[in-house]
Amino acid sequence: MANGIERPLDLLNTSKGKEVLVHLKGEKYFVGTLLAFDIHINLVLDNVKEMQDGELKKSLGLTFLRGDTIIYISPASTALKKD
Amino acid sequence: MANGIERPLDLLNTSKGKEVLVHLKGEKYFVGTLLAFDIHINLVLDNVKEMQDGELKKSLGLTFLRGDTIIYISPASTALKKD
Amino acid sequence: MANGIERPLDLLNTSKGKEVLVHLKGEKYFVGTLLAFDIHINLVLDNVKEMQDGELKKSLGLTFLRGDTIIYISPASTALKKD
Amino acid sequence: MANGIERPLDLLNTSKGKEVLVHLKGEKYFVGTLLAFDIHINLVLDNVKEMQDGELKKSLGLTFLRGDTIIYISPASTALKKD
Amino acid sequence: MANGIERPLDLLNTSKGKEVLVHLKGEKYFVGTLLAFDIHINLVLDNVKEMQDGELKKSLGLTFLRGDTIIYISPASTALKKD
Amino acid sequence: MANGIERPLDLLNTSKGKEVLVHLKGEKYFVGTLLAFDIHINLVLDNVKEMQDGELKKSLGLTFLRGDTIIYISPASTALKKD
Amino acid sequence: MANGIERPLDLLNTSKGKEVLVHLKGEKYFVGTLLAFDIHINLVLDNVKEMQDGELKKSLGLTFLRGDTIIYISPASTALKKD
Repeated sequence: MANGIERPLDLLNTSKGKEVLVHLKGEKYFVGTLLAFDIHINLVLDNVKEMQDGELKKSLGLTFLRGDTIIYISPASTALKKD
Repeated sequence: MANGIERPLDLLNTSKGKEVLVHLKGEKYFVGTLLAFDIHINLVLDNVKEMQDGELKKSLGLTFLRGDTIIYISPASTALKKD
Repeated sequence: MANGIERPLDLLNTSKGKEVLVHLKGEKYFVGTLLAFDIHINLVLDNVKEMQDGELKKSLGLTFLRGDTIIYISPASTALKKD
Repeated sequence: MANGIERPLDLLNTSKGKEVLVHLKGEKYFVGTLLAFDIHINLVLDNVKEMQDGELKKSLGLTFLRGDTIIYISPASTALKKD
Repeated sequence: MANGIERPLDLLNTSKGKEVLVHLKGEKYFVGTLLAFDIHINLVLDNVKEMQDGELKKSLGLTFLRGDTIIYISPASTALKKD
Repeated sequence: MANGIERPLDLLNTSKGKEVLVHLKGEKYFVGTLLAFDIHINLVLDNVKEMQDGELKKSLGLTFLRGDTIIYISPASTALKKD
Repeated sequence: MANGIERPLDLLNTSKGKEVLVHLKGEKYFVGTLLAFDIHINLVLDNVKEMQDGELKKSLGLTFLRGDTIIYISPASTALKKD
């Protein structure tokens, strides 16, 4: 399979150490460096920035995000370049 | 059974490598190439485009979609031709 | 028991290959031929039509519907004749 | 215990073959003959009528109702006589 | 511990055969005699009355209430006397 | 660790027999004496008062609160003194 | 991995005894010292302050927060300095 992705968590694994865009329920967007994840899709991101309408809303630094509220996770290299 | 689909996940299996339309809660629509899925219906799609009212809203590239927010998944060959 | 239905899933089993009306949360209605289901009530339908106020809203062809958003499933032979 | 009901599911068991009133989330009411249920409170009803403000909204015939959206189930002999 | 209540379900056990006030999500209130409960907090009540703003909205008789929508259960002897 | 609290449930254990403030979803607040709890955070409180905008809305006496709707639980000695 | 964080819960472990910012569903924010957590992300915080629009809304002291309503947890040293 393209990109060596056999299972969905493979994409999170190859994104460790890279910047990702995370979209949460309630129209929230966060950008940060993915440090860790688990099977519940709980994440730890570093240098987290909460974005709103493409503008910085809040800088959070290191953050634990509960998987329950996540809609999608996309490597920022592809997600942020094409808007 | 027609199409060799005995269980619901069989449709996702035969859709790997093909373009699918994914409808999420909150009136969100994504189109992309299905790379991987698991039993929680978590997906990885490539070349993802978020659509709104039939127009491109955002290009996301590679994306992990959490199964929890998914309403339906339909192969784009049938879903997108008949609007 | 009438109709040979001992357990709820028996109705889905006897509806395979037949047209069903599926009502989802958020006032969504789909009509299609039931191909497969599992214990999570995930479904695969063929020739799916999304209906709104009795009118065709969108044709989807083959579609995977996540069980989580389903309110009811009714064989179309009985559900659609008596409106 | 009165009525021979030791556990909640005992009431569903003694209601098989009888008409029940089912109240779902979103202010939906259904009346029909209970044919089957399981531990998830998924139901199959026959001769189902969706009611709104005491009036018939839609006749559905045989219907599978997912337990997840159910608020209460009441034998129609008691529920419908005392409004 | 006062009242011999060591675990939450002990209160439901000592309330069997007595009138309880049940508050559901969506600002719904029911009063009835508790006949049975299980670990999912599914209940069977008898002589159920749905209340709204302190007035009788609907008499339901025997009713199965799904635990999922329950906020609280209070013995009516204490809950109804102090309004 | 300060207060001898190693795990979250330790705080509930040391609060037994004491007054607690419980905040539920939907902007509901209850004050009462904690008698019992379980791992689902189901609670039994005694002398329960439902509060609204700092005023008594309803006295409930003994009450079973389902854990599912709870946002926080705080010993009243600290929560109620500092408003 | 940077910061010695291999799994998401590692961040919570290294934050014990430190001040954290906790964001709950419904636009609620709490600041307090993390004393304990479990795998459900239930937390006990000390010296809790509920914040609204950057202002103190309510002081709660010791508080048990149910994990179910949590969106993110961020060490206050990074989260609160960069607004």
